[in-house]
Amino acid sequence: MNRIANDRLRSKIMSPEDAASLIANGTTVGMSGFTGSGYPKSVPMALAARIEAEHAAGNPFRVRVWTGASTGPELDGALAKADGIEFRLPYNSDPIAREKINSGEMNYFDLHLSQVAPMAWQGFLGPLDTAVVEISGITADGTLIPSSSIGNNKTWLDQAKQVILEVNRWQSEALNGMHDIYYGTALPPHRKPIPLVNPDDRIGEPHFRCDPEKIVAIVETDTPDRNLPFAEPDAVAEAIAGHLLEFFRHEVARGRLPKELLPLQSGVGNVTNAVLTGLMDAPFENLTAFTEVVQDGMLDLLEAGKLRMASATAFSLSPEAAKRFNDNAGAFRDKLILRPQEISNHPELVRRLGCLAMNGLIEADIYGNVNSTHIMGSRIQNGIGGSGDFARNAYVSIFMTPSTAKGGKISAIVPQASHVDHISQDVQVIVTEQGLADLRGLAPRQRAELIIANCAHPDYRPALQDYFARARKGSYGQHAPTLPGEALSWHQRFMDTGSMMP
Amino acid sequence: MNRIANDRLRSKIMSPEDAASLIANGTTVGMSGFTGSGYPKSVPMALAARIEAEHAAGNPFRVRVWTGASTGPELDGALAKADGIEFRLPYNSDPIAREKINSGEMNYFDLHLSQVAPMAWQGFLGPLDTAVVEISGITADGTLIPSSSIGNNKTWLDQAKQVILEVNRWQSEALNGMHDIYYGTALPPHRKPIPLVNPDDRIGEPHFRCDPEKIVAIVETDTPDRNLPFAEPDAVAEAIAGHLLEFFRHEVARGRLPKELLPLQSGVGNVTNAVLTGLMDAPFENLTAFTEVVQDGMLDLLEAGKLRMASATAFSLSPEAAKRFNDNAGAFRDKLILRPQEISNHPELVRRLGCLAMNGLIEADIYGNVNSTHIMGSRIQNGIGGSGDFARNAYVSIFMTPSTAKGGKISAIVPQASHVDHISQDVQVIVTEQGLADLRGLAPRQRAELIIANCAHPDYRPALQDYFARARKGSYGQHAPTLPGEALSWHQRFMDTGSMMP
Repeated sequence: MNRIANDRLRSKIMSPEDAASLIANGTTVGMSGFTGSGYPKSVPMALAARIEAEHAAGNPFRVRVWTGASTGPELDGALAKADGIEFRLPYNSDPIAREKINSGEMNYFDLHLSQVAPMAWQGFLGPLDTAVVEISGITADGTLIPSSSIGNNKTWLDQAKQVILEVNRWQSEALNGMHDIYYGTALPPHRKPIPLVNPDDRIGEPHFRCDPEKIVAIVETDTPDRNLPFAEPDAVAEAIAGHLLEFFRHEVARGRLPKELLPLQSGVGNVTNAVLTGLMDAPFENLTAFTEVVQDGMLDLLEAGKLRMASATAFSLSPEAAKRFNDNAGAFRDKLILRPQEISNHPELVRRLGCLAMNGLIEADIYGNVNSTHIMGSRIQNGIGGSGDFARNAYVSIFMTPSTAKGGKISAIVPQASHVDHISQDVQVIVTEQGLADLRGLAPRQRAELIIANCAHPDYRPALQDYFARARKGSYGQHAPTLPGEALSWHQRFMDTGSMMP
Repeated sequence: MNRIANDRLRSKIMSPEDAASLIANGTTVGMSGFTGSGYPKSVPMALAARIEAEHAAGNPFRVRVWTGASTGPELDGALAKADGIEFRLPYNSDPIAREKINSGEMNYFDLHLSQVAPMAWQGFLGPLDTAVVEISGITADGTLIPSSSIGNNKTWLDQAKQVILEVNRWQSEALNGMHDIYYGTALPPHRKPIPLVNPDDRIGEPHFRCDPEKIVAIVETDTPDRNLPFAEPDAVAEAIAGHLLEFFRHEVARGRLPKELLPLQSGVGNVTNAVLTGLMDAPFENLTAFTEVVQDGMLDLLEAGKLRMASATAFSLSPEAAKRFNDNAGAFRDKLILRPQEISNHPELVRRLGCLAMNGLIEADIYGNVNSTHIMGSRIQNGIGGSGDFARNAYVSIFMTPSTAKGGKISAIVPQASHVDHISQDVQVIVTEQGLADLRGLAPRQRAELIIANCAHPDYRPALQDYFARARKGSYGQHAPTLPGEALSWHQRFMDTGSMMP
C-alpha cells in the first residue's frame, strides 16, 4: 500500500542527501526518537556525511539536537562521530555521544522528560529551526500517522520553521490508530486540567497535524528500529523481582494496594524485565501500565491477558518481539496507547493515577538518596529520563539494583551518593538481590540501618556499619550522621585502585 | 459573640488539662499549625505538663506528632522540652525540637508538604488516634470555621478516631468565609482532576465538616499566634531582590513572562520579604500569588493593589501585621483564600498555574544542586517544606541566598552540596547579592562557570575556580567534573576550624 496517500505531499519526496542539505550549520534540529524507536534513520546519516565533508573542507558545521530520548546509531552515533553535535537534550544512551559528553567535547542538557516540550514552548532554549520526524504514513488529508514512538514529535512539528519527514515502511501499518496525540497543552496562564482519569482514556487524536507549507522534504525508508536483544533474567534479577513481588503481595494483603495493583511504570533493562516476567506467575490480574516504554515483558503480559492495557510513549523491543508485534499488531491495538511524552510522564497524571514506579539506579546512599546518572559523581551514563517525573509523584516509588557492579568492585550502597537525582523523600523502597528496604515513614537513622541490613552486599556491609557507627560519633548533626571528609572516599578509592573495597 | 454556636457541642467544653488527659501514651496526634499560625496553644501545653508528671513518676509517655508544618513554642517547644515526642512529621522550626532531632533523641520524618495528607490516607504511617485542631468558631449546624492556617486539618479531622478542638477567640471573626476546603481528593484509582485553573478559583467549602460523635473535647483559648517580628530588609537582601526583579523585567521584555507575571510562590524569611517589598515599586500590576504562606510583604502588596489576590494555606505575619490584619480582615476577605496544604502545594496545580517559585537555600554547588535543609550535610535546619512541590513544577524555579553566612565563614556556593534537596534540573535561577545565574538550558560545565562568576562571594571565587580547573583535569568524567576526595572538604574544614576559607 502507498504510505503517502496525499498527492501534494508526494511531490516533496527526495533523497536523504537533498533533505539533509536543507539543514544549516549552527541551527537547532528537533528529531523524533525515544528509547531506540521511531527515530529518523536516513536524514541524520546523510547530515553526518555532509558534516564530515564540510569539516574535511575546513568548514565549521555543528547542530543543536533535541530528541524525545535515546535514538540509534544512525542518529546520535553518526552525528557524534562526525563531531556534528554542539548541544544535545535530553537523555542519551549512544556510546559515541556519551564519550563526547564525558570527554567535555559536547554540551549535554539533561532534563525531566515531561518538561522538554513545555520548556521548548517557554522559549529560553531558542527557536527550533528544523523538525526531522519519522512517521509510518501520511493520510489522504495530510495528517501524519505516527511511528513506533511519539516522544516530543507533536511539539517539534508545531514549533519548527521547516519539517523533514521520514516515512518508514518497515513500521507496521497497524500502528495507525494506536496513538493518542493530545492537543490541549498550553503555556500558563492558559493551562487546563488534563482530562485523563484512567490509563485507558483517549484524550486526543490518532494523527499529528502538520502545516503542509512547512514540510520541505519527505524521505522514504525501510529500516528497522534499533532493537536490542533481550537478555533472559539472571539469578540476581530474579531475586530482585521476587522481593518486589512479595512486597506487592504484602501490600495487597494489608489493603494498601488494590488487588489489580495500580498502573505500573517501569524503566528499561534486565531487572525491570525480570519483574515483568515475574508478574506472569504472580496472583495479580487486570493489571495496567502507565509508563514510558513498552518492553518485551509487557508484550508477554498483554498476550497472556495479565496486563489489561498499557499506555506509553514508545516501544523498546528486542528484534524477536518487534517481529512478533509487527506480525500481529492488530491484536495489540486495543491494548496499547502511545502518547506524547509530555503526557505519558506528566506529573499531574502520574500523581492522579497513583503509579507504582519501578526504576533502576547506579547507587543509593545509606539514607536513601539515589544516583541514577553520574558514575563516580561526574561521568554521565544516560540521563535522568522520566525517573524524576514518576518517582516524585508515584504512589510508591521503588528503585532496584544489583547490590554490586563490576564483579563486586563497586557497591551500589555507599556512605554518600556521589550525585543525587532522587532525594530520599522520593525513594520509598529500595530492592537489591539481598532484600528489600521499605523506607516509608522512617527517619534517616532508621533508613540507614534498614538499607545496610537489607540491601547492601555482605562484602560491603561491615564497612557501611563501621562508617555509620563512626558518623554517629563525629557528625556535625545527628539527624543524618555524615562524615564529609570520608563520605565520598569510596568513590575516590575506586578511581585510585579500581575497587571501592576498603 | 459566641464562637460556639452549636448547643450540642457547647456541652463538650472542658479544661485543657481534661482534654489532654484523653490522649494516651504511644498514640499518634495530628495537630493543626503551619508556619506558626493556627496551632493549638493550650492542649499541647497541658499534655506536656502531663508528660512531665508521668516521667517524674517513672512512667513512659511519648506521642507521635503530625502537623501541617512548623507550629509554636506552646506545641513543639513544650512537648520537645518534656521529651514527649517520639516521632515528628513534617517541617519543624522549633529550636528545642530541632536540638532533640540533631542530638539523635527524636525521629523526624521530613516529607514534601503536599504529600503529607495523601500519605496519611495511604496507611503506612499507621492510624491517627487524635486530632487537636485550632479553629476560630463553630457554626450553629456544627461545621468548623478554620483558623489562621489550614494545613492538614481536613485530613486530621477526617482520619482521627477522636477530635479535640481549640476555639481561639483571638483569631479574627472575619476569617469566616476566607477558606476553601476541597473535599474532592481520594486514593487512586479514584482520583479526579482538581478543578482549579486560576489562583482565585474556589473549589470547596468555607468550613470543615466533622462528625460531632468524634469530638471529645472543646477548649476555649484567647492566645495570639507565634508571630515573629518583621526584619526590615538589609542591603544584602535588597541587592538579591534587585537582581531578581531585573530578571523578571527582562523576561517580560523578551515576551517570556506575561506583564502581570505568573502566580508567585515565596518561601518565608528576610530575603523573600525583600523581594515582595521590591515589588511595591516594580512595574508589575495585577499580580497573583499561589503559595504556602501570606507574609507581611504580601499584605502590603494587597493593600497597595499591586497584588490582586493571594492563595495560601496559612498566615505568617509579624505582630504588627497580624494586628493590622485582625483590625481590618474584612477588607482582605475577597483577596485571600486559604486552602489545605495538599491543594496549596499540589504539583498538578503548581504546574498548571506555572508558578514563579522563590525559595531560600543553605548552599548550592557549582552545578546548581541545592541543599535547603542539612547544615554540613547532617544537621537539619527546618525541613524541605513545600520547596520541592514548587521547585520541580514551577514555570521558573528560583533559589536565593546571601553568598556567605556566619560572617563570611561559610560560603553558600560550594564545590559539592553536602546534601541535596533540589537537583540541578529543578534549580533554574540562583541569586545572591553578587548577581544572578540563569541556568536554563545550560550543561553542567556552563552552569559551573556562571554560578562561580555571578553568585559566589569574591573571597571564595578563586578557590572555586581552582577546584573547577583541577576537576577538569582529574575527574572520572567530564560531564560534571568532580574530585570526590576533595568535594566535601570545605564542610570538613568548617567542622575542624570554624571556617570554610582555605
